[in-house]
Amino acid sequence: MSEPQPAWLEEWADQVLRGDTRAMAAAISAVENRDPRSIALLQRLFPHTGRATLIGVTGASGSGKSTLVDRLAAALRQQGHPVAILAVDPTSPFTGGAILGDRLRMQAAAHDPGIFVRSLATRGALGGLSSATLDAAMVLDAAGKQFILVETVGVGQDEVDIAQLVDVTLLLLVPQMGDDVQVFKAGVMEIADVFVINKADLPAADRLEQDLRSLVEVAQEQEGHRQPTIVRTVAIEGEGVSELLGAVTGYVAFARSTGAFDERRLCAWRSRLLERVRERALERVGLQACSNGLLNRYAVEVATRQRDPYSVADEILEQAGRSAARE
Amino acid sequence: MSEPQPAWLEEWADQVLRGDTRAMAAAISAVENRDPRSIALLQRLFPHTGRATLIGVTGASGSGKSTLVDRLAAALRQQGHPVAILAVDPTSPFTGGAILGDRLRMQAAAHDPGIFVRSLATRGALGGLSSATLDAAMVLDAAGKQFILVETVGVGQDEVDIAQLVDVTLLLLVPQMGDDVQVFKAGVMEIADVFVINKADLPAADRLEQDLRSLVEVAQEQEGHRQPTIVRTVAIEGEGVSELLGAVTGYVAFARSTGAFDERRLCAWRSRLLERVRERALERVGLQACSNGLLNRYAVEVATRQRDPYSVADEILEQAGRSAARE
Repeated sequence: MSEPQPAWLEEWADQVLRGDTRAMAAAISAVENRDPRSIALLQRLFPHTGRATLIGVTGASGSGKSTLVDRLAAALRQQGHPVAILAVDPTSPFTGGAILGDRLRMQAAAHDPGIFVRSLATRGALGGLSSATLDAAMVLDAAGKQFILVETVGVGQDEVDIAQLVDVTLLLLVPQMGDDVQVFKAGVMEIADVFVINKADLPAADRLEQDLRSLVEVAQEQEGHRQPTIVRTVAIEGEGVSELLGAVTGYVAFARSTGAFDERRLCAWRSRLLERVRERALERVGLQACSNGLLNRYAVEVATRQRDPYSVADEILEQAGRSAARE
Repeated sequence: MSEPQPAWLEEWADQVLRGDTRAMAAAISAVENRDPRSIALLQRLFPHTGRATLIGVTGASGSGKSTLVDRLAAALRQQGHPVAILAVDPTSPFTGGAILGDRLRMQAAAHDPGIFVRSLATRGALGGLSSATLDAAMVLDAAGKQFILVETVGVGQDEVDIAQLVDVTLLLLVPQMGDDVQVFKAGVMEIADVFVINKADLPAADRLEQDLRSLVEVAQEQEGHRQPTIVRTVAIEGEGVSELLGAVTGYVAFARSTGAFDERRLCAWRSRLLERVRERALERVGLQACSNGLLNRYAVEVATRQRDPYSVADEILEQAGRSAARE
């Protein structure tokens, strides 16, 4: 980047790089809202990223995910690592639609100012919750956080994307009572590097572990990859947390030694670039807003069956092409 | 479209228009896989669409959604209407990742060849489950189905999109026992036109109805729109199904009379056009495949911090623009 940067941008970036909490929070808000200034900031921060390890933690509501994430964060802090938590929660319990609101984080995270905690939810017609989450993680990475815990419920496509874009993925399961089913999006089970049996003091834990072991044994050892590990925890009591941390750092060390870690990051960049092209294609044609006049004219033509939507979409894209060529 | 169409395409389209079940099934498979031939077919079918009413039915797993959809389909058939069911299910229960597999549809649908039933799941890196579902509905519409019931679990962004793209949206809730929460994606509660309290013979049904009534009363009557209706059913016994059908057709008749129906379809076309532009932008640059060599070269540049992802994405899009301009 050879153009001079505005002073406010330099200052904002410097504050983030120094680990200023308010600057980080403002940067993540800008990223979450896809504020155009956030791109300039992310470009400025980008050379300072790539050092943090991103740990994805996925588990159904009620599986004790937040508690476990808090415990993991506290354990990492005790080892002297700067830690952040990004909680992605696009679901809304039946309370009239309020998104998440205040999270009640009981232990460590709430009382330790060294742990930066932030919730993210879907915004905007352009979607891109996974882009926003990974961009927010880049802010935290630039700010010197060494471990970033990304917590998701595992039911949306965005969440599957996120789990595939982090460095290591933990999947929380709880022993079942009755005929409940743990519902995840298809593909979530397949991308776990570490299975966590939480609430492992429940009677059905042995059965669950047995089921998981047969599942894991079916998975072939691939070159540079190993079979997922299974760890039992009782997060609320802190039991098994240090074993879990050992399994996570063990996985990361192994993946780094075989090159699987770098290959995974490369694959993540391929996906993230595609997603960014997608976003930019829409921005370029000025079609971000659904109420856009031109877009509405096209919609009327389609709704009245004067033209088919596939030809119209191609015409819109050709206009985007001309606009890009003019610049 | 002035170019001559290949004979196979004409024949396929004619078979769909005649309501041939195998031709419809093949068309929907092509649509689901985003087979390029499906676009040519959809363009050919497009002038014959717009007559069917799309009814979205959203409810958590275990809410009795499939049973209710079957009952509604049977009731519509009894009134002499051609009916189809599209079941969208991107979630996978903890069974090793098998998607859906065979649905057990107990009553009407399974035994009535006049009811076309089809399950859809996510496919392909380009995503677009909502595009695929709405395109599949267009096939059924062209084939003469008057009512198309689109069933979703309501937890993914695609499913919220689908619920917003149909003509009328039903949301199923069940009276709660214990401290369970009915988890939906944020925004799902807000887009219901009809709330269905299923399993209304459970003791907590009165409490749920009371909660819903307060929720509904908060929602302002807007011009051309009315407050959501609340209907109680016991789907497994068939209780309340004809009342529910009355509420649905009542909503549609009202929305048609005020113009809200057409405005909603127009808004749906705006979203669908945007989504199609998105898909085409990626197709044009030949970046559908994540293993694409050029894409990988870019990913390496980004992963090694030689270039930032935002500049790279712009460069890719400019290439797409030039490619579009050349055609």
